[in-house]
Amino acid sequence: MRQLKRREFLKTSGFLVFGGLPLRFSAAQGGAKGSNGLSGSTRRILEGHLATVENHLNNGIIPFWFARALDTQYGGYMTNFDEQGKALPVPEKYVNTQCRLIWWFSTLHRRFPQMPKAADMANQGVDFLIKHFWDEKYGGFFWKVHRDGSELDSAKIVYGESFCIYALSEYYLATGDRRGLDYASRTFDLLQKYCADVQHGGYIENFLRDWCPEAGGFAGGDRKSLDTHMHLMESFTTLFAASREDVHRRKLLEVVSLICEKMIDKTSGCGLNQFDLAFRSIPAIAIKRTWNGERLGEQPPDPVDTTSYGHNVEMEYLMHLALETAHQDLTPYKPIFRRVLDHTAEYGVDWEQGGIFRDGLRATSKPLVLEKEFWQHSEALVGFLDGYELFREPRYLEAFGKVWQFVQDYMIIKGVGEWRTLLARSGKPIDPNIGNPWKVAYHTGRSMLESRERLRRLLSS
Amino acid sequence: MRQLKRREFLKTSGFLVFGGLPLRFSAAQGGAKGSNGLSGSTRRILEGHLATVENHLNNGIIPFWFARALDTQYGGYMTNFDEQGKALPVPEKYVNTQCRLIWWFSTLHRRFPQMPKAADMANQGVDFLIKHFWDEKYGGFFWKVHRDGSELDSAKIVYGESFCIYALSEYYLATGDRRGLDYASRTFDLLQKYCADVQHGGYIENFLRDWCPEAGGFAGGDRKSLDTHMHLMESFTTLFAASREDVHRRKLLEVVSLICEKMIDKTSGCGLNQFDLAFRSIPAIAIKRTWNGERLGEQPPDPVDTTSYGHNVEMEYLMHLALETAHQDLTPYKPIFRRVLDHTAEYGVDWEQGGIFRDGLRATSKPLVLEKEFWQHSEALVGFLDGYELFREPRYLEAFGKVWQFVQDYMIIKGVGEWRTLLARSGKPIDPNIGNPWKVAYHTGRSMLESRERLRRLLSS
Repeated sequence: MRQLKRREFLKTSGFLVFGGLPLRFSAAQGGAKGSNGLSGSTRRILEGHLATVENHLNNGIIPFWFARALDTQYGGYMTNFDEQGKALPVPEKYVNTQCRLIWWFSTLHRRFPQMPKAADMANQGVDFLIKHFWDEKYGGFFWKVHRDGSELDSAKIVYGESFCIYALSEYYLATGDRRGLDYASRTFDLLQKYCADVQHGGYIENFLRDWCPEAGGFAGGDRKSLDTHMHLMESFTTLFAASREDVHRRKLLEVVSLICEKMIDKTSGCGLNQFDLAFRSIPAIAIKRTWNGERLGEQPPDPVDTTSYGHNVEMEYLMHLALETAHQDLTPYKPIFRRVLDHTAEYGVDWEQGGIFRDGLRATSKPLVLEKEFWQHSEALVGFLDGYELFREPRYLEAFGKVWQFVQDYMIIKGVGEWRTLLARSGKPIDPNIGNPWKVAYHTGRSMLESRERLRRLLSS
Repeated sequence: MRQLKRREFLKTSGFLVFGGLPLRFSAAQGGAKGSNGLSGSTRRILEGHLATVENHLNNGIIPFWFARALDTQYGGYMTNFDEQGKALPVPEKYVNTQCRLIWWFSTLHRRFPQMPKAADMANQGVDFLIKHFWDEKYGGFFWKVHRDGSELDSAKIVYGESFCIYALSEYYLATGDRRGLDYASRTFDLLQKYCADVQHGGYIENFLRDWCPEAGGFAGGDRKSLDTHMHLMESFTTLFAASREDVHRRKLLEVVSLICEKMIDKTSGCGLNQFDLAFRSIPAIAIKRTWNGERLGEQPPDPVDTTSYGHNVEMEYLMHLALETAHQDLTPYKPIFRRVLDHTAEYGVDWEQGGIFRDGLRATSKPLVLEKEFWQHSEALVGFLDGYELFREPRYLEAFGKVWQFVQDYMIIKGVGEWRTLLARSGKPIDPNIGNPWKVAYHTGRSMLESRERLRRLLSS
């Protein structure tokens, strides 16, 4: 049955798949195939979106990173670029960003195996990662190194380790290189041994090099977050797709349940940000390596009353993918998906000026930070299309359109092919440059690949 | 400071210590040394107990197992004996019982290094364990084998794995043989990877050979228990004493907190028996490999309203040892210790006929099963002396006396040197034999060693 669906999908999606599962098994689980036919006008809207998405992917993001990502001097990847796409200095290489580009080139090779060079680009990134980030003494990957690979910050941060699992699993699925699955599995094992909190459930997130927990407060040793747990859900999904091991599936489903039970506000349906170790929701403070605090002057009246629109929609489609990959019935989760999408569509989308706000309040449902940041837009595109495919709710398709138009009008730098990082509400650049050391092609590129996939499935339904 | 205390203890206890920490750091943490001087009559009572305990240890239990434990045909240990101490057939060797005898001979060697043969007896048990129980394919130790070591039940049961950690850590502390710590650490890692429940906290307890969870109900895949978690506390304590690794200490303290928060009834202070995966207290059913159901005709009116007096006192002193080994302040835990000891002294001890009842009710505080079983008596001896040392509560010393007199009068088989397994309330044998496949020297022998240690410390204070 699954295999049939898979073949169906492969036939209709136009994707070839090498060395593992496709990212999605079928289009059928959401809306019954064919029974929910698109109207002519909807079809034309979807065709328009597919054309602009494919154009940006093929003539923007894909060539942008092929041309610039390789660090020809030291190996690994360059990450920082100005608004003309000219390389800026890279004093530090973060493990999560190096992994985001390993993931990017790996997933390109998996989705477009005829594309030259993607596997080579991924392979040299894996070489650099294992050579310079892997800790031979204590296991796990360091948080960051200098550009040449020399030691800079040897902490073990679960957020970063999770991106290693994600990237290395995707790399294995794309290339079959056993190093990918081996190091991903070893990292998974280390998280279970050192980071799983057997008293409260969940994972402690910030550790010293030797896997002793970091101090509390700014160093984050006494905090848990939706952010990190959502990325664990993401990486365990790909790890399970690569390994087919029961334990990877079980831990994936444990994280899914944990997010649903402890990390989603029961009243609004939104994600909460930070927690103490016992999962009590607490004010989101800045955390040394992974989380910026609220911007000055933008503190909410109740400091736990913030929610990230970007994380909310990202959570929806990552959870949807996790459940499909683990062959779980979606029915009990659909109300969760609907609520969070409805909330984001209603309050997160800027229906007036386009795009999506950065952060909002849950209790009063008001947006709090009106600036427009790149990654929330990337995630909103996929989340709203995912919801549209699942529920055929027209509002979600309109929300997609509202965000995508804003991205095309203001974020994408014409003729260069990537997005600016931060704009004012109106679209005026605040940070004109393309790069920051965390950005690369993960959010922007994935949003184009995943939007393309969903648009194609919708149009073939 | 610690070192000073330790040397003091070594000097006064008369124990030599090889390869690691003594089981207890000092006598001082409980009652202030010297400030709580014993009266002449109490001193005479303690001296009397010490004499009878040492006599039974030196002329009963120690020679009994030296003479009979070795399986001269296949290696490993014999476990079943009739009331004359004659070997009965051993169709099955359980991993926990083989480990209990590895632990026994190891701890003898650690406490009495001048004693000949104990290390050899432990060493051949470890050879047998690693050769026949260790699973080269999936890791972990099988649940049971035939007497010759051939496969019988390859399930992975956390209760059994915990005894492997306990025995192999004690063996390493006693002998310095690296195999002990290596296999104990590897087993610990496997528990973190496969058994830790990252959704609810705690450990899932029953697994198939490949570490997929067992079915629910009788196979126990959907249950957690105080029993298993208490034994994890016990084994992680010894593992940490052997390894001094931070992660072993952290997981130990997580289990301690979990027991205090989830597994102790807030009203009575008693331990609860069984839980669903989310730690909701549920009726204790029979579990295939680890737990007998209530005896016929002895079902309580409310099926969750049972408590095990033996586990309650065992929990007290194992938690006390865990906290001392992890250098934790005892103050917050003392009320927990007092309540559970008070409850057991008040309702568990048979003040009329001596000994301790098998099981009781929490809500009405009535004993439920009036039979007298060997292991609850062993654990009560240590628990009450532990409480007396900590609180100088005379009732606890009286309870020790009431239980120890019953054991001497009815359980110990004169001239043979071990205990019967099960008696009627009056002391009349129900099961006249010494052995059952789980019994060996772990409860009885440990109770004598630990009672001796506490009595000597009290007398030297």
